[in-house]
Amino acid sequence: MPLVERDAASAEVRVVYDEICAARGAPDVNNFWKALAHHPEELRAVWAEMSRVMAPGAIDASTKEMLYLAVSITNGCGYCIRSHERAARRAGMTDAQHGELLAVVGAANKNNRLANGLAVPLDE
Amino acid sequence: MPLVERDAASAEVRVVYDEICAARGAPDVNNFWKALAHHPEELRAVWAEMSRVMAPGAIDASTKEMLYLAVSITNGCGYCIRSHERAARRAGMTDAQHGELLAVVGAANKNNRLANGLAVPLDE
Amino acid sequence: MPLVERDAASAEVRVVYDEICAARGAPDVNNFWKALAHHPEELRAVWAEMSRVMAPGAIDASTKEMLYLAVSITNGCGYCIRSHERAARRAGMTDAQHGELLAVVGAANKNNRLANGLAVPLDE
Amino acid sequence: MPLVERDAASAEVRVVYDEICAARGAPDVNNFWKALAHHPEELRAVWAEMSRVMAPGAIDASTKEMLYLAVSITNGCGYCIRSHERAARRAGMTDAQHGELLAVVGAANKNNRLANGLAVPLDE
Amino acid sequence: MPLVERDAASAEVRVVYDEICAARGAPDVNNFWKALAHHPEELRAVWAEMSRVMAPGAIDASTKEMLYLAVSITNGCGYCIRSHERAARRAGMTDAQHGELLAVVGAANKNNRLANGLAVPLDE
Amino acid sequence: MPLVERDAASAEVRVVYDEICAARGAPDVNNFWKALAHHPEELRAVWAEMSRVMAPGAIDASTKEMLYLAVSITNGCGYCIRSHERAARRAGMTDAQHGELLAVVGAANKNNRLANGLAVPLDE
Repeated sequence: MPLVERDAASAEVRVVYDEICAARGAPDVNNFWKALAHHPEELRAVWAEMSRVMAPGAIDASTKEMLYLAVSITNGCGYCIRSHERAARRAGMTDAQHGELLAVVGAANKNNRLANGLAVPLDE
Repeated sequence: MPLVERDAASAEVRVVYDEICAARGAPDVNNFWKALAHHPEELRAVWAEMSRVMAPGAIDASTKEMLYLAVSITNGCGYCIRSHERAARRAGMTDAQHGELLAVVGAANKNNRLANGLAVPLDE
Repeated sequence: MPLVERDAASAEVRVVYDEICAARGAPDVNNFWKALAHHPEELRAVWAEMSRVMAPGAIDASTKEMLYLAVSITNGCGYCIRSHERAARRAGMTDAQHGELLAVVGAANKNNRLANGLAVPLDE
Repeated sequence: MPLVERDAASAEVRVVYDEICAARGAPDVNNFWKALAHHPEELRAVWAEMSRVMAPGAIDASTKEMLYLAVSITNGCGYCIRSHERAARRAGMTDAQHGELLAVVGAANKNNRLANGLAVPLDE
Repeated sequence: MPLVERDAASAEVRVVYDEICAARGAPDVNNFWKALAHHPEELRAVWAEMSRVMAPGAIDASTKEMLYLAVSITNGCGYCIRSHERAARRAGMTDAQHGELLAVVGAANKNNRLANGLAVPLDE
Repeated sequence: MPLVERDAASAEVRVVYDEICAARGAPDVNNFWKALAHHPEELRAVWAEMSRVMAPGAIDASTKEMLYLAVSITNGCGYCIRSHERAARRAGMTDAQHGELLAVVGAANKNNRLANGLAVPLDE
């Protein structure tokens, strides 16, 4: 499926692209949105959810991006890893933090399997 | 497999249990360690890794626990979710932060699949 | 590993290729089968299973392809997503159905994690 | 965390519970919603998404529930499997369809790994 | 769904139960087969596949059970972990081998994520 | 992120590279290590763990590589599949064993989902 570039987009899609560009301070949207734009209602819904859940709140924006990255690494989504590593760095993640994030994600994925494999009963 | 309780543990295992109790300020270790103690070398190695990667560094302890929890939720490890939600709360995670973590983890797991399903090409 | 092309295939493999081509009305088999052909017994068994489980029965062929696609998206198998999206479209899946499938798969992957993360007890 | 029962729920939560009960024709909501109700904004958002994506459209309600079930089985979410198997049956899934769904989900999970393990290149 | 016990089983199901009992030298079949028996054709196909792929060949029976266990631990299937740990022990897996298997499975799950997270390019 | 080639590496990183080359009898390290070298402490720790857990012990080296490969296939890590298939072949895995490994990994991934989907209760 070709990506939906701005020039070929419907008015409905263009409105969402404009909101994303404004929020990100970027001249164009990422390929994720251009692929999703084949389904305009889903495009709008995913953007609304992302705006809501990734906005700084009780957890700051940089930590939210690191959580998102940790999930994407665990699931092995190559596109998501690359785009959210970039987003996390823009939000302030340093090289040292990236290294520690990888170490925690690695240890959790390992220990999740040790707990599975040992059939550990719940603590009281 | 029965858990290895402190009284039945070898000297080698007891040394690790003592380190864990001292580090956590707790009178006993969790079931995860008591199950792992059937393999003393692995017990020592996992504890050494956890001490190293979960210690506050460029990322603070509470955020590390939240990253660990995000991975465990993604993998669906029931034991790990419960014990690391508790650890995250002890390290300072609030109810509001827990809610936002769930929202980010949910959105990432969803969008990882949308990116997979749309075969989104990498951004330049 | 190079793919096993028809000309270089053993008689045993060629028989399976012929069955696949006849069933699909296609002049050649997909790369999946050409890679699997290094293990002829497995090739035969996988083809037999696919013929059996993907044939229309209580569930029609198009819905079966959509179920297969939903699993492949969840697991992030790039090859499988592309080949079964094509198969689903051949079996009748429309653009609108593809969009709704993505929305359901996304929501299920998200809510599976919310249920994990909240440790929801079974309903009575 | 205890579940949020209707009597103890805030007005904001009760409004969502009422919408769910009305849509489902049920006297009470499932535990999933009672656990999510600790985070009222997330409760509202998840319910809005589920209403939207699970409603019959280009794909009928029963097929949507089967897709949801296929994802939940793939991810191994015990709670989700049980509640969406029930939902799928209510929407019309028969025993025979359930058996065929399991066979397709099993085959897809197997073949996703064969394709991974053989590093199959994309078809042209 | 209740399990299909031998006394309540159809002749078709009983034939498969008899084959399993004979092959395993056991007086009754495991719950996995009793649950699958609601779908007799699938029961027969799964048993045929298991007989074929788990039989000693180029890989011995004990190693095959350890591979099966490693996959089940990675996927977090509690039932499968327990039943195949038992099967692996019956086929000769020792305590020391179980400990080493857990260590390898843990390291692989960790390093799979490090490779994902670092987007490591293929070696030449 | 560019890979850390030997010439550009710090003394600390070069020591680990030398150990890896000596252990593998290879003139250079794989890209996995060159990517990890951006985080020297993690590089050292991962190498120490791999040396320890992959060394022949109660399980021989070839079987350990096959277990590692089975996990990597299940998780769909393309880089890991390729590099550990190569490692397994170097350690003695034959074509026939590779074919049987794929068959076992496929069957386990399928049956894990059948057990999930049927909610099979534990055997006594």
